[in-house]
Parts: sequence; structure tokens; C-alpha cells
Amino acid sequence: MIRVTVWTEFDKTDIPAPVAAAYPDGMDGCLGSILGGKDFKVTLANLFDADCGLSEKLLNDTDVLVYWAHSRHGAVPDDAVARVKNEVNKGMGAIFLHSAHHSKAFKALTGASGDLVWREIGEHERLWTATPAHPIAKGVEQGFVIPHEEMYGEPFDIPNPDCTVFLGWYAGGEVFRSGVTFTRGCGKIFYFQPGHETFPVYYQPEIRTILKNAVLWAAPSYRRVQLGCPNIKTSPEGIEGKL
Amino acid sequence: MIRVTVWTEFDKTDIPAPVAAAYPDGMDGCLGSILGGKDFKVTLANLFDADCGLSEKLLNDTDVLVYWAHSRHGAVPDDAVARVKNEVNKGMGAIFLHSAHHSKAFKALTGASGDLVWREIGEHERLWTATPAHPIAKGVEQGFVIPHEEMYGEPFDIPNPDCTVFLGWYAGGEVFRSGVTFTRGCGKIFYFQPGHETFPVYYQPEIRTILKNAVLWAAPSYRRVQLGCPNIKTSPEGIEGKL
Amino acid sequence: MIRVTVWTEFDKTDIPAPVAAAYPDGMDGCLGSILGGKDFKVTLANLFDADCGLSEKLLNDTDVLVYWAHSRHGAVPDDAVARVKNEVNKGMGAIFLHSAHHSKAFKALTGASGDLVWREIGEHERLWTATPAHPIAKGVEQGFVIPHEEMYGEPFDIPNPDCTVFLGWYAGGEVFRSGVTFTRGCGKIFYFQPGHETFPVYYQPEIRTILKNAVLWAAPSYRRVQLGCPNIKTSPEGIEGKL
Amino acid sequence: MIRVTVWTEFDKTDIPAPVAAAYPDGMDGCLGSILGGKDFKVTLANLFDADCGLSEKLLNDTDVLVYWAHSRHGAVPDDAVARVKNEVNKGMGAIFLHSAHHSKAFKALTGASGDLVWREIGEHERLWTATPAHPIAKGVEQGFVIPHEEMYGEPFDIPNPDCTVFLGWYAGGEVFRSGVTFTRGCGKIFYFQPGHETFPVYYQPEIRTILKNAVLWAAPSYRRVQLGCPNIKTSPEGIEGKL
Repeated sequence: MIRVTVWTEFDKTDIPAPVAAAYPDGMDGCLGSILGGKDFKVTLANLFDADCGLSEKLLNDTDVLVYWAHSRHGAVPDDAVARVKNEVNKGMGAIFLHSAHHSKAFKALTGASGDLVWREIGEHERLWTATPAHPIAKGVEQGFVIPHEEMYGEPFDIPNPDCTVFLGWYAGGEVFRSGVTFTRGCGKIFYFQPGHETFPVYYQPEIRTILKNAVLWAAPSYRRVQLGCPNIKTSPEGIEGKL
Repeated sequence: MIRVTVWTEFDKTDIPAPVAAAYPDGMDGCLGSILGGKDFKVTLANLFDADCGLSEKLLNDTDVLVYWAHSRHGAVPDDAVARVKNEVNKGMGAIFLHSAHHSKAFKALTGASGDLVWREIGEHERLWTATPAHPIAKGVEQGFVIPHEEMYGEPFDIPNPDCTVFLGWYAGGEVFRSGVTFTRGCGKIFYFQPGHETFPVYYQPEIRTILKNAVLWAAPSYRRVQLGCPNIKTSPEGIEGKL
Repeated sequence: MIRVTVWTEFDKTDIPAPVAAAYPDGMDGCLGSILGGKDFKVTLANLFDADCGLSEKLLNDTDVLVYWAHSRHGAVPDDAVARVKNEVNKGMGAIFLHSAHHSKAFKALTGASGDLVWREIGEHERLWTATPAHPIAKGVEQGFVIPHEEMYGEPFDIPNPDCTVFLGWYAGGEVFRSGVTFTRGCGKIFYFQPGHETFPVYYQPEIRTILKNAVLWAAPSYRRVQLGCPNIKTSPEGIEGKL
Repeated sequence: MIRVTVWTEFDKTDIPAPVAAAYPDGMDGCLGSILGGKDFKVTLANLFDADCGLSEKLLNDTDVLVYWAHSRHGAVPDDAVARVKNEVNKGMGAIFLHSAHHSKAFKALTGASGDLVWREIGEHERLWTATPAHPIAKGVEQGFVIPHEEMYGEPFDIPNPDCTVFLGWYAGGEVFRSGVTFTRGCGKIFYFQPGHETFPVYYQPEIRTILKNAVLWAAPSYRRVQLGCPNIKTSPEGIEGKL
């Protein structure tokens, strides 16, 4: 069983009307519903929970963190960011969705700015699989259409990814590395571009297939304790110090 | 001074009419004219020269090989392919253009199939810089238009590149990793998608800037002799054998 | 069930005495015995079989090819090499052992020379895990000793690996990237340095753990048909040609 | 001319005696002296300067930051770390030396923990070049000896490097990826293991060659302004919004 925490920045009692219109069960509810059945244990968390929904205990008990945020990146305190980064390094998977490219946690894990260009006219996007053998692309049709999406365009300021799984094409003329993977420590990271909060993208079957694949892929087979920097006083070869 | 060999598959005395229409001086002539002045020494070579234009001597005297081929990949003998691969491993730069994705040399150097999807209706392409800091992207405008190009689409079967410099957007709906780099041994490799033989793409200023940048980038600062597999009989630590 | 083909270069009826001394059941027999039980179906093949043990049918029916060769690389015909390369690109896993760094197949898949430096005095090697979270490193003790091994030292002429799983330390003073992974097309590749034919390295428990892990890791979840280069005549966006 | 800032954590008026013994001119003085002549403009800075020696103005005027620190990582405030990270993303080169693997800046740029194992008995290290064609390895002898060094061993918790330039061998039995490169945004990063503060490592000619090479390599040819996330309101293709 994979323990998934779906984290969003919304106050459940105060969701903006356009978001509620697109996601009547909340973005977290919609995302969580992708991972049904006995294979997954889903926890919904958000910025307004205790420890802003990113407590040490919850992260310790999380196999894969699914992270959606847009306008409240600044409200996440640095110690919560440090906990996420540390837990990913220990093996927790992390899936950063859409505008989470600018979350403190994504920037802390990649070491880059996450900058990009954008446009919000609701143009359609096509999603192409660049690496069909990647587990996240399993069962995904080539070039399927997302009817309305916010455009995110290159240059996307990220380190060279381990794998460019998906590329996005926009009607307006731009392209984007829409699905990319990274490794940090023992943790697997997937960034996925689709999912503007006012379009019901996460209800789309192809997108749901991708996200379920991503959670399965990011779930750790190995979770380490903190490495730290141990002093190995005795040399394996049994040599003495020369000082 | 950088010694550049521009290699094409055409018989100078028998160039197909549509190619001659787009490239009155030949594709090699057009490509060679990008690299004028005293900083470059350009040699034009082709499949119909001695040793099919890829002799050991010529490759030894080449800093950067610019390689354009489409329909005659099969005519290049395996020993010529081996010479190109070996010379790149020793440090020669190589720029594979357009349909050279399916050349024996590109496939030998990448270890992949170079497969892709394609369409030839002359749609326009936009070229986006994904990695603005890469020397090959210097001075290149974001999203510039190539008025007519053959579409090459994903999945592009290549190893994960060292750098994805450019991404292509096609009016018809596809995307492509249009400019990617690899390293093999001491040699730098750049694959660049634009340049169908019936469109005058290599006369376009932005393309010429990119190709000149690419030659400057791929020129080796280091050219090794053949490594081979030397037997280091005496251990640096002076230990005796245990056998 | 994972179908594994263990391939060696030895004529079963004429194994050199020092090899037979270290491997009374043959190197292939020893390697095959790592993969017992109902989870694996092991086939032993060698250079002296029909199609030099690398027939299209056998490769088609192989999930992971384990490849050991040393002094007979030149005897493998180019079309067999092409079949291995093609099948890896389609998804077959491949594990190249020890001196297979210089096999035609490894060089064809990496695009590099595979050159290195070596010494054969039977010094001991320590194997260190650089990437503990990699599945191939599961359950492997840090810095374990291989009592006698042929030294393989840097520079190892390979492309930048996807992952450096293991590093080797030699008593004589050298180091080596002893366990590295690559991806080509849909296929996973693992190169592993230990395993000189006159030392019983493949009987050592830590080595057997690594090799079993490697086979499990390299087994494809996806096996494609040949991609080729399909012509997508109708554009997804329904545009007409401009020519 | 390359503007180099050499930063250390030492209070110039209160350098520990063992450090002063090994580096009579200070570690910064020794490091700065590598970069003499008219090709370099060297500034020495440290933790006890204004803005802890990492002011926005100084970083703006720095092409390559050489960073040595060991026991005072915690004293560097987070806003200084953010300035370093931001400036590297804009193009400033950064060379992290020895124990700077655990500096906040290195961890912020790599996204990893930088953890490793260590031992301080002054054993000797051999440095091997894994990638001879890399500019940082130019003119460096294979396997040269550092007479006394603190051992840093694997696993070294870093993202897969762009290039593993050097590997270290220790008399005590460990190995290490002693010289590795990364790219973040437009900035080049080199981590280099040698240089314990009580051994005169930075006076050793081979080490000085490497560090000079590294500064030349890391100097930016391109320095961007802050990217930010611009809103591209008008689509290149001139389409209207669909909302």
C-alpha cells in the first residue's frame, strides 16, 4: 500500500469561486480520487492545517507527496520546506504539479529558479510522450489534447532532467518540457505542467493515468535514515594515521 | 583556425532539381559559406569522393565534421562509419543535420535507433531555446519562425542528451527536441533538426547563427591519440602480485 | 517470470584450464545458478551455438541478456551485434560483465570505445556503493572485498552514465566506475566490472546479490515493436500543406 | 579578465594555529595566489566582512566564486545563501572546495544533503582523471599523490553530476567522486574534494593547475538578468483566447 499525501494551498472553507467551479470536490479531492482502492492510502492536507500540513510526522508517514500550489508559495515557512527537502532526500517521492514549479520546495530540491514564461488565454495543449518506455508514460496516447490550459513556455529554468518524459505543444505557438524527472538523494521527483486551477484538467482520463503512473513510479523501494557525515575512524585497510 | 569538413551525400554533377532550386550552390556550398573568413578552413566533401569523402586523412585533419544526408545512408560503408566514430571519440566535433538522425554514423555514436515520426507538407516551425546559456544559443531569438520545414516529431529515439538546447514547435501540432548535444569520448556532438533539402533553411540568418555557434562549440580543445587498453604492469602503490 | 540468457564466448568442450579451475560448472553455469527458482527461466548460450548464440529468435525471447566475453570479441559477426543492439533498443535488458567493456555490442550501444587501463596481478578490490538507493545496490554491504580481481582503471571511456552505482578501489592504487547504468531506447543496460575468468568472483555472495538485483532491475516492463520512422500524413491540428 | 572572489570562513585576525601553520598567507591568500597576472582580478572575502563577505554588489561583480568553509556553515545567514544561489543561476561560476560540500550554498544549489563519510588520519590520496577531455583536467597527471588529506568517502549524496572529472583513491581503502560538475541556470559549478585546512594541499602544483583550469572553465560567457516569469500576453501564432 502506498501512502500518498495530496497537499494544496487552499483553505477548505474559502476556496475561490472559479476553482470551486472547476473542482467541486476541491483540487485535493479530485487528485485524491485518482488513487482509489486498497493499493493507496490517501491523506489530504493543506496550508491551513497544523504545521501548514507538512509536519514531520505526516511526511515521515508519506511515501509520495503530491503538491499543488500557486499563489501562496510565500506562506510556506522555510522550516516546512526544509522538512520536505530532507524527506525527499531520504526517499519520499514528490510530484510537483503545475504552478508548483515556483514553490519553495521545488526550487530547494532542484537548486534552480523554476522560472518560465506563461499566458492564460485557455488555449489548448497537446501532450507528447518523448520517452515511451518510461513507466509514467504507460498507456498514454501520443499527442492527446488538453482542451484548455494555461500556457507554460520555455525557457524553463531547471537542471538537466534525468528524463524528459513529456513535451507540451500549445496552440499559441510555444512548447514546454511538461513532464520531467529528477532524483535527489533516495527520492524520485516528477514535475508535471498541466493543471491550472480553473480548468478541470485533473478530471481528464489521460491526466489521471499519468498521475497514477507517477505515484507508482515515485513510491520508494528504499527509505534511508538520515545519512549525516559519519567519521569512519578505522580504515578498512587497517592503516595507521600518518600524522 | 578551425578546420571544418562539410559532408553531403550528393553527387555534384547530378543534384536533384528540387534541391538545386533551393540550394543553387549546393547544400554543401551553402553550409560552407556560413563559415567564412580566416577563422575557418572549410573543405567540401561528399559520398562520391574517394573513400566516400570520409578518408582517414581527411578526418584526421578535421576539427568539426558537418554532416548532411538523407536518402543514401546505406551507401556509406561500415569502415567509413567506424572511422567517423573513432575520430569523434578522439575529439573531432560532429554536427549531424536534419535527416542525418538516421545516418549510420549518428546511430553508431548514440547507440540508439534515431527513429522519429515525420510529415512533409511544408508547415512552419518555431524554434525555442530551452537552454539560453548554452553557447550554441548565443544571439538566437526566442521562437523564431522557419517558414517551411519537414516536420520531425517525438518520440525521438535518442539517449538522454547532455543538453536540450532547442525545442521545435510545428503548426501541425507536433513538438521535437530540435537541438540536442552529446559527448562521446573527447568529442562533442550536436544534432540539429532543421534543414530539409527542398527548403532554403540554411540561408536563414538565425539558422546560420546557430550553425556557426555549433561549430565554434564543437571544435576540440583536446585531441587525443588512441587510448587503447594499456597494461599498467607496475602498480602505483608498488604492491606485488598475490597470485 | 524473467527470461534470462547467459551468453559466454567459451566452447563448452574446450574451456581453458584456468577458467575451468575457477568455474567447474563453466562461467555460464555459475552465472545461471544465481537465478534459480520459478521467477527465472535461464538459457545458456555461447559463441559456438548456431547464430553464435545470438539468434533473432533467442533474443526475442530474452528479457535480460547477461554477456561475458574477453578474448573472442572479434569472432562475433556484425549482424549478431546489430541484433543485440536492436533488441536492447526495443526493451531487452543487457548486463555486460567485466571484459565485455570491449565487446562489439557494448561499444555499439554506448557509442564509445570502452577503453580503460588494466593490470593482472590478482590484487584485491573493494566495491563501494555510490548510489545506495539504486535497486541494484539493495542489500549490498559498503566496501566489501573481492579477494582477487583483475584491475580495471580510469579513464574508462564511456558516456556519462545515467547512474554510477558502484566505484571500485584497488590495492595497487587505482579506482574505477565499476557499476554504471545506461538507457538506450526502451532497454536498460548495466555494466559491472568484477569477474575475471580465473578468479571465482561470481561465486561470491555479494556479487551474486548484485547480479540478481541487476537482472530484476533490467527486466523490461515495456517491449516495443520496431519504431521505424512513420509518416504522419495528417496533421493533428488538421492543417493543409503550404507547398 | 576574470573577476574571482575567494571566500573563506576565517577571521583574519584569529586564524587557528594549525591552519596558520599550513597556510602562512591564509587559505584565501594561498588560493588567490593561484590566479595571478592580468588575466585575473582577485578579491579576498570572508565571513567577518560586511554582509558576511557575500554582498549583492560583490557577487554581481564576481565572475567566479571560490568557496572554502568547514566549521562555520551555520553562521552564514540564509539571505546570503539566497544571493549566492541566485547569482549562480544568473551565470556566476562557483567552485566549492573540500568541506564546502556541507555549506548551505552547495546544498541549496544541488538540492541534496551533501552527506559523505570521512576520516582524518592524514592518509595519502591519489587523484585520477575519469574524463581526460574535460577542460578542468587539462595538463593533470594521472593518479598523482596528495601526501596527506582528510578522507572523504562514498556514498557522496549529490545529484548525478554533469561530469565526473576526478575520482579519489585513499590509502585507507575508500574512494570518492573528488571532482564533479553541475549546471544551475546559467551558472557552472565545480565541487573539488582536496584541501583540508591543516595540510598545505593548495600549494601543490597539480592542485593549483586544476583550480586555475576550474576558474577558467566556470567563468561565464553569458550573464543573464533575472528571468522571472513574464506573462506573454500575445501568442506568437496570434490566436485569441478561448475563454
